[in-house]
Amino acid sequence: MSRYWSDVVHRLTPYVPGEQPRIEGLVKLNTNECPYGPSEAVLAAMAAQTGEGLRLYPDPQSGALRQAVAAHHGLRPEQVFVGNGSDEVLAHAFLGLLKHEAPLLHPDISYSFYPVYARLYGIATRELPLAEDFGIRIDDFLAARRDGGAGAIIFPNPNAPTGMALPLSELRRLLDACPDLPVVIDEAYVDFGAESAVALIDACPQLLVVRTLSKSRALAGLRVGYALGHPDLVEALNRVKDSFNSYPLDRVASAGAVAAMQDEAWFQATRARIIATRERLAAALAARGFQVLPSAANFVFARHPAQAGAALAAALREQKVLVRQFARPARIADFLRISVGTEAQTDTLLQALDRVLGR
Amino acid sequence: MSRYWSDVVHRLTPYVPGEQPRIEGLVKLNTNECPYGPSEAVLAAMAAQTGEGLRLYPDPQSGALRQAVAAHHGLRPEQVFVGNGSDEVLAHAFLGLLKHEAPLLHPDISYSFYPVYARLYGIATRELPLAEDFGIRIDDFLAARRDGGAGAIIFPNPNAPTGMALPLSELRRLLDACPDLPVVIDEAYVDFGAESAVALIDACPQLLVVRTLSKSRALAGLRVGYALGHPDLVEALNRVKDSFNSYPLDRVASAGAVAAMQDEAWFQATRARIIATRERLAAALAARGFQVLPSAANFVFARHPAQAGAALAAALREQKVLVRQFARPARIADFLRISVGTEAQTDTLLQALDRVLGR
Repeated sequence: MSRYWSDVVHRLTPYVPGEQPRIEGLVKLNTNECPYGPSEAVLAAMAAQTGEGLRLYPDPQSGALRQAVAAHHGLRPEQVFVGNGSDEVLAHAFLGLLKHEAPLLHPDISYSFYPVYARLYGIATRELPLAEDFGIRIDDFLAARRDGGAGAIIFPNPNAPTGMALPLSELRRLLDACPDLPVVIDEAYVDFGAESAVALIDACPQLLVVRTLSKSRALAGLRVGYALGHPDLVEALNRVKDSFNSYPLDRVASAGAVAAMQDEAWFQATRARIIATRERLAAALAARGFQVLPSAANFVFARHPAQAGAALAAALREQKVLVRQFARPARIADFLRISVGTEAQTDTLLQALDRVLGR
Repeated sequence: MSRYWSDVVHRLTPYVPGEQPRIEGLVKLNTNECPYGPSEAVLAAMAAQTGEGLRLYPDPQSGALRQAVAAHHGLRPEQVFVGNGSDEVLAHAFLGLLKHEAPLLHPDISYSFYPVYARLYGIATRELPLAEDFGIRIDDFLAARRDGGAGAIIFPNPNAPTGMALPLSELRRLLDACPDLPVVIDEAYVDFGAESAVALIDACPQLLVVRTLSKSRALAGLRVGYALGHPDLVEALNRVKDSFNSYPLDRVASAGAVAAMQDEAWFQATRARIIATRERLAAALAARGFQVLPSAANFVFARHPAQAGAALAAALREQKVLVRQFARPARIADFLRISVGTEAQTDTLLQALDRVLGR
């Protein structure tokens, strides 16, 4: 507390990311990073930019990267916005597209940064409970809109931390019923098995799809994310960005991101590998009595019928395996969110679980 | 314009950075970049981070970089905040420290991003005209505060685009008279000859000093800036940052920035070189009849008695020399802001000027 702070600072409750400990030999399955390093083409492109040219500002419009992203998705560059990680992209979307008189609707169990952005920018929100089976119910969003009004809608697909995905038909039903509302679909995990809403962009001018290179491109350490949508929505993000920081992407990160978007072979092979390991992990957890939610992401969300979540996470940590557990809301406190690691890390996790569970 | 935009988007007037053209053989003296490439130690440190570790998130607290910055300035890490370029650091300072009921005071001729941030965050401002000689008058700030009240104060030292610096004694006089007001001194150009307010941080808990690695460390392409001040001020910035983007600095940029802060020999040699060229440039312009404001920065601000600024800038561009000219306010429209280049670039500029002026 300080008398020099702006009022807003007093009401902030900052987001707390998963920890990044430096413990020798730790199996780190707590922040949904890719267990494999990025494409060699990415590293080569970055090395080529690590030179004298760093004395010059980057392209403020990130033209080359927007071009590469557009080409990957079959869109035009003016349908692409890029930023310093999808967290920055989401922040600009909250301020530029999701702040309206009527409340922003989002699921109660979801990416926990959403309410943090809302407090930062003074955005009214309404949280809608997930269904009994932890799925997002589109009908609940439509009913909430009828009952109390809605200014905008945001949710991840697949949702986090559940990992559960909605089919494209449900997204289409939502968008068709709400042509007047900005709708942000946060597809951080979509490459691991969900249907992308990108296919709906040309038909739905109110739809913004947000992506990250942190997960399926193995570049969490590079901080690059992007958004796709109608040029009018991209224009709103550009106006906010150009009122905040002209050059959010540095020269080396931009070059690496371009190469990442272009290396289709690495991308397809890596996501297939992670999906295969996820299926093995989910089956192995189920065989040990866990309830495992159906995951379309690079993590699983699972609870043991007889073990409290916090205690189980702590016991795994003793075994040098780090997973994430959320104390709130209470309904998910007994779940563990376990990132999909390498095959060997998955074996280590399962062995540690067996020791902890006394099998 | 779009019905999906938040209200704030409609009132934004984004900042327009100096252009980054790709024209073969252009002498680029328009964005105050360093004419020399960064330290070899920076490139080596970046190369060492360009590898498999990019799959992992960076340290959200940027501990190593805050340590290196603190060591350079003889401060403690908790007195250091780091961000994605000083533009991002300034943005967080505007929201977290400069938004109050009473208006933010800043000079009318100054970094033109300040009013852009103010509009983004709905901050009331009052612009104070520079003196006749284009200097900042502390007495005007004190008078404005008495007359109309003040919530906070910000200005660059040296000021941009004038390049003129205030002595430390004047900063001290301001801070002593305003112990209750957050005061941000933007020292983007301080390493080229001004007295730094960092010396006042321990005595003045309301003082935040903002720095960039873009100019005197030759890393405009890397996007790293920082702020120095009392831990309570740093805490405000951290709360805003952790409500916006947990990881604004990527692994490679952080490593490069650490090396940049540690390479004292490169730093001292490069800034001495630029200061020497600036003095030669200023003398050569004066010899050609220009009024040259006394610069403590890596650029000069100068006007020819007989040439309109816009026409002169356009004529230089025809000669493949790019400088910056500001159409507004009218009082500075005939000035050119010319970045200090290499010795050879300075010769090219002077030759082009002679051709344009018909000497």
